Amino acid sequence: MKLIIGNKNYSSWSLRAWLALKQSGLSFEELTVNIGGDDWAALKRESGEIMPSGKVPVLWDGETVIWDSLAIMDYLADKVGRERFWPRDDAARGMALSMVAEMHSSYMAMRSECPMNVRKRFDGVGLSDAARDDIVRVLQLWAEARARFGKGGPFLFGTFGAADVFYAPVVSRFVTYGIAVPGFARAYMEAVWEHEWMQAWIDGAEDEQWVIEQYETAPRV
Amino acid sequence: MKLIIGNKNYSSWSLRAWLALKQSGLSFEELTVNIGGDDWAALKRESGEIMPSGKVPVLWDGETVIWDSLAIMDYLADKVGRERFWPRDDAARGMALSMVAEMHSSYMAMRSECPMNVRKRFDGVGLSDAARDDIVRVLQLWAEARARFGKGGPFLFGTFGAADVFYAPVVSRFVTYGIAVPGFARAYMEAVWEHEWMQAWIDGAEDEQWVIEQYETAPRV
Repeated sequence: MKLIIGNKNYSSWSLRAWLALKQSGLSFEELTVNIGGDDWAALKRESGEIMPSGKVPVLWDGETVIWDSLAIMDYLADKVGRERFWPRDDAARGMALSMVAEMHSSYMAMRSECPMNVRKRFDGVGLSDAARDDIVRVLQLWAEARARFGKGGPFLFGTFGAADVFYAPVVSRFVTYGIAVPGFARAYMEAVWEHEWMQAWIDGAEDEQWVIEQYETAPRV
Repeated sequence: MKLIIGNKNYSSWSLRAWLALKQSGLSFEELTVNIGGDDWAALKRESGEIMPSGKVPVLWDGETVIWDSLAIMDYLADKVGRERFWPRDDAARGMALSMVAEMHSSYMAMRSECPMNVRKRFDGVGLSDAARDDIVRVLQLWAEARARFGKGGPFLFGTFGAADVFYAPVVSRFVTYGIAVPGFARAYMEAVWEHEWMQAWIDGAEDEQWVIEQYETAPRV
């Protein structure tokens, strides 16, 4: 399988797909595209086959093309067994599915005002009420998942799974934008940030020096 | 199981969850909430338990609460077998998963400029370029799914499934806003519109006379 992703520093949807691949345990090749760079526009124009939606991430598996991070995760879950991604317990799985779907469709204010930027540290960013509401909502969901279903480990539903994959970019945002969070959330964020896959992604983002030359500010991906 | 939905005339996400329940073959009770009505605001305030996201649809299954249409569909698919919703073939399933996930996160212009309104017929609605791009994208996806995987029946992947569930409100929009479409799309739209579940939903929307008194224009749900 081959995974096409954007810049590790900026592309939050790529991070989700990449973590999902790691979680699947399957081996894959990765191809990083410099979003916003000169070849990006050309690639978007010419590569209906490679990127049918004109966006990253895209997973290629033989004749199969999957062009959305959530679809990639569910495709992999079908392949390796859904219990590797989703809790077995109905109530926990119902909540994890809902949280992931909500992440996929919502939090527009938080996402646009705090675009993922793994390397940089922001200080005193002014946030709109809508972005603050998004943050409060995320913290409520984390609190409920941890309290009800997180007994078996440091992650949202105990062991690392689909919900952690999908909220990992939010952890990155809270860390780099210095968002004030309660203690339980800080502990959860540390567990995600210190996870070996997350650390490998962060190292990858550090190496993308060429990206800095391209942008004044982070693109909204 | 109990499904809480919004007005059948307006709530496109409710239609998706309701069709998913029908597709599951499981029996369920439905509870319709008048979105935007007086009791809606009160219900949102008071019912953290009932509607944890403050939005419809919500599915209750004993102790399990699922508050997003895509999560509801995948919860049901886990329950009754994923092949009832998703194609078995990898390439087809990869495309269906991607199309559904894209519907869930995208098409903002089309969704906001053409909010679902099952009863009404619009004439000569002016659309932005962004909304037109959304429509073209949908038609391209329908064309590809029908051509590559739709041989076995009139629906996107042959038999009625998850992708049809998720694009049914788009069919409704194209019909009621009089969007010009190519012949193959018209045939697909007729198959969806004439489907007995869709007809039952449309009949339900016709009966919601109380809604008309509440709104000047359709709310954006």
